[in-house]
This record gives sequence, C-alpha cells and structure tokens, in this order.
Amino acid sequence: MILNEIGKLISEKCNFAIISHYSPDGDAIGSSLGLYNALKEIGKNVDIFIPDNLPNRFSYLPLFDEIKNQKQYKENYECILVLDCGDEDRLGEFVDILKHTDLVINIDHHISNTLYGNINYVDSNASSVGEIIYNLLKLNGYDISKNTACCLYTSIISDTGGFKYSNTTSMTFNIAGDLINTGIDFPEINRILFDTKSVNQIKLLSLVTSTLEMHNDDKLALIYMTRDMLNKSGASEDDASEMVNLARDIETAEVGVFIKEIDDKVFRISLRSKNIVDVRLIAEKFDGGGHVRAAGCTIKGDFAEVKKRLIDEILSQWK
Amino acid sequence: MILNEIGKLISEKCNFAIISHYSPDGDAIGSSLGLYNALKEIGKNVDIFIPDNLPNRFSYLPLFDEIKNQKQYKENYECILVLDCGDEDRLGEFVDILKHTDLVINIDHHISNTLYGNINYVDSNASSVGEIIYNLLKLNGYDISKNTACCLYTSIISDTGGFKYSNTTSMTFNIAGDLINTGIDFPEINRILFDTKSVNQIKLLSLVTSTLEMHNDDKLALIYMTRDMLNKSGASEDDASEMVNLARDIETAEVGVFIKEIDDKVFRISLRSKNIVDVRLIAEKFDGGGHVRAAGCTIKGDFAEVKKRLIDEILSQWK
Repeated sequence: MILNEIGKLISEKCNFAIISHYSPDGDAIGSSLGLYNALKEIGKNVDIFIPDNLPNRFSYLPLFDEIKNQKQYKENYECILVLDCGDEDRLGEFVDILKHTDLVINIDHHISNTLYGNINYVDSNASSVGEIIYNLLKLNGYDISKNTACCLYTSIISDTGGFKYSNTTSMTFNIAGDLINTGIDFPEINRILFDTKSVNQIKLLSLVTSTLEMHNDDKLALIYMTRDMLNKSGASEDDASEMVNLARDIETAEVGVFIKEIDDKVFRISLRSKNIVDVRLIAEKFDGGGHVRAAGCTIKGDFAEVKKRLIDEILSQWK
Repeated sequence: MILNEIGKLISEKCNFAIISHYSPDGDAIGSSLGLYNALKEIGKNVDIFIPDNLPNRFSYLPLFDEIKNQKQYKENYECILVLDCGDEDRLGEFVDILKHTDLVINIDHHISNTLYGNINYVDSNASSVGEIIYNLLKLNGYDISKNTACCLYTSIISDTGGFKYSNTTSMTFNIAGDLINTGIDFPEINRILFDTKSVNQIKLLSLVTSTLEMHNDDKLALIYMTRDMLNKSGASEDDASEMVNLARDIETAEVGVFIKEIDDKVFRISLRSKNIVDVRLIAEKFDGGGHVRAAGCTIKGDFAEVKKRLIDEILSQWK
C-alpha cells in the first residue's frame, strides 16, 4: 500500500492508538510522538503507548508526558498504528491486543520487518521512521507544526547519528531542512542528545581513558574497563557501551581493542579496525565472530594473560 | 556583484591563485580546495596557497598535497580569489601581493568582512564559504565532481559542527544532500573530523575529567586543568580548548566552569550557563566579560582560594 492510501484511511477513521517498541530509541519515540502531535492537531482521538520506561533525555519533546504504558491501555481503537517495530515480539503485551483490532497498520524502515498487520508500509531506504511519517503527512496535505517537526527531527538525528551514518540520503537532508524551517531549536536538541553526559558517565570516561595502551608502533590501541570502574563511577552498562570505539578512534590506530571485565576472570573483547586487519579472523580464534571491521569474543583467564594472548593473536594476523 | 558575474569573470581569465587565511580551519581549506579542484577540472591554470602549516587531519582532501605556502608564491596571476578571510591581516605576507594584482576577488561569509579587493561577495547567511562556492559553481553550470564535493562537504560540516550550529539552514541541508549524491564517503569524513583523537588528547581528557566537582545540588559543575596535566599528557593548547564545554554538558548542570592554569598562580576561567544564570555578570566581577551564556575572566591567587572566590560569586549571582 502506498502512503497516500494510508493517509486516506487515517482521514476516514476517528480514534487511533500509536504504539512503538520496548527499549525505545529516539526514532521510536520521535516518530510516534510526531504522528501523535499531528493527529491531535487535526482533531483525531488518539493515544500513544510505549511498553517500557522512557529515557528522560527525550522529555523536551512536545506531549512526551502523554505517552502511556501497556497498563494504561483500556479502550478499543478503530486503528492501531505500529511504528519502527520490525517484529511483533518487540511490542510486549501489545501482541495480543493487535490480534483483537480490526485495522493494524505497520509502518517501519527495518528490512527485516516481518510484515505483520493488516497493512504494512516498510521502506528500508528511509533513514528513520520519522522520515516516513514526514512523507505520510506531506503527501496527505498536512501542515507540519513546530511541535511535530521537533519530534520528527529528533527521530531523524537519532537514527542517523546526526547525519553521520551511511543511511543519510539527500532525501533525509531535504526533510531536515524543511523541519528546521519551522523554527525548532535544533542546536539545543543536538546538545541534549549528543553532548549531554551524566556525572557518572564522566567519571567512567576518566577511569577508562586512563587505561589507554598503545602497541605495535601506535597502530594498536587498547583500552579496558573493570567491574570496579563501573562500580566506582556508578555508571550503567549502557554508559559502558559508548567506550567501545574509543581505542579505534585514536588517529594512529589501525586496530582498536576494548576489553570489558564481565565476571571474575571473564572478559568480553570488542575489536575494531580501519583499513587493513580483518578482526573477525582474530575473534574467531577465540570462538567469537562478527565482521571484517567490527568483531567480538569472550576470553577467560587472568587479565594480564588474556591481554597477552589477544595482543599476540592480533600481531600474528597483522602480517 | 552577484555570483553569475563572478562566474563570468572566472570564465574569461586563464590563470588564478586561490588564497585563504593563516591558522586555517576546515572551511578555509575545504572551500579553497573545492574551488581549486573545480577550476583544474575545467582546464584553468590555478595555484592554491595557505600562509601557514596545515592540520594533517585534512590530508584526505583531494589535491591537499598541492597546497603551497607563501614562500612558493612566484608567478603573477591574472586573478586572485581570496576565500573565507574577513580581513586582509589574516593573509600574512599575501597582503602586499594583493596590492600588486589587478583583480582580487574576496569571497566570504563573515559579517565583519572589511570588503577589501576589487570585487567582493560576502554572504553572512551562508553557513560556510563552501556553501557559497557550491552556489558559484552551480549557477555557472559547472558539474560538481566527487573530488570537489568531498572538499565542499568538509567545509560545510566544519563550520556547522556537523549541522548542529544555528548557522545551518535548509539551504545548507539541500547543498549537503547534493554533495553526498556524488558518492563521497561522508561517514568516513565525519569519523576523521569529529571522532578521531590523538593519544595525547585521550590522556589529557582522562586527567581533566578526573577533576570534576559538583556543587549546589549538582547544578554547578567545575573542571580544571593544570599546566602539569598539559605537560604530562603532551597535549597542545588547541587540545585543551575542547575541554571548555565538558562541565556545561553535565546533564544536571545549569552552570559549567572550566579553570585553566595559565601561569604560576594565574588562572583563566571559562563560564557557561544553560537557562538561568547570567555568567557575564560573574565574569565582570573579576574584570572579565562575554555574553549571558558564555563568559570568561582571569583570576590570580592560590588555586584553592581562586576556586572558592569564584564559587562564592557564582552562588551569590544565582539568587
């Protein structure tokens, strides 16, 4: 089905639920709230649901406080719009509710989408569902308000890493240009999403960066994180995930290694490379896997011994 | 003069010099090399000059190695194109050369441009000179090659902080979309310019972030850097400048303070705020100045005493 037809269906119905996936990211929240704001503005009865806790950094989004969880789902709706959700399993308790609703419209950009629902529109060329919602609204003659634009812009920059990832297209840029013309404070949105850190994140960053070691004429960078660092800083596992690329991002490094202590004498290894070394081959030596430029494995043993085995293996693959 | 007329002038001349300012940034180098690539592609005789050392991180730019310095300036040119240079004083020894050239075209986006040269085109609405060069080439029917696009894209993301700053417009986005359609590896360009750090930068980051202090119910964040940290890490003053916003970027902080030891018992203070506190008033108390959200001053004394005076002053302004 094409977007015009979905737009026509929406114009004919009166009451809607918009649902997105658990562990929601900026695209899930931004695209859902964007559509929610737009439908409310034209007088539709609409509720919005996300089956999980919401990251508080998105609280600047218009009508963020109106997002409900699964326990607050009571009414029956004429139409459920499911956004950014490649698989019904990511909807938690809503899976059953979908079965008892006459019209379920599945709008997504994941190529792996399982095409559930009565109608589905999956565009894997779209950087984000925010981009699809923009097109849906435009093609059906809706004005895009500043509030809706704030949500859709958030969705787009979240899924493109601020226009840095390869999913960014000239369409993405054209849409972003139209959205900022509504007068949204996009420098502030970028500051909140990309520059803001918690005290605990800064503490963890300080501890982890202090471990930097360079090997092989500064072409191999290695950084590690102990459980003690995580405890001392009070940071979360999620905060730790941002450390993975620190070593790779050293300018002279061809290979970047991040070693994370996950249990007593158990270490999770993340390997990254830039141009030459196939890190998947290294990961496979330790029963791990991945891709040529990003791979991972788990190694057990004393830290010093694990590190030595790993470095020896990397250097042997380098030749 | 409008861009079409400048284009016509360029089409009539044969040999050109392109010059930009000392201490060159991404816009200076990117816009100059973009125009240089484009003029070479249509068979013009053209040389490119920058009167300073070039930051090596831009070495991925096509024809970067052909950039000459002032000592290599020998020929006479029919036309000198000066890019991204608001003031002739930023051209070093080239100031005299301009006086002895018949046709000097000054292309810039700084509102403060002194309008030197025989012809000047200053568009302060343009995010970057790269954006102006794009328009110059387009309006005059030039194809924009992948090489030229790589340079102009670099120029734009450098001066907009990756489309984050308020100088980004829908025009900027439209141009960026056209440039990435040439097939440039823009994720890699972004990685090089925004994510790459030197070993010394990481060492400095570790030392400086370890000093984080929170005051006033976590609403005042303070970070400091001693000369000893700079020496230990081997980082440059330029690396240190990136630390200024670290404290402000703490999520709970309304005010962020960065204290930098610049001499024995002499400290340079940078103050940042988000929504409430007028940091200029604080800076002025110590004979400094600035703006409501970003100000600075210099305070002499023992570190502990300087820090106490500063915090006391901030808290007294908070009410």
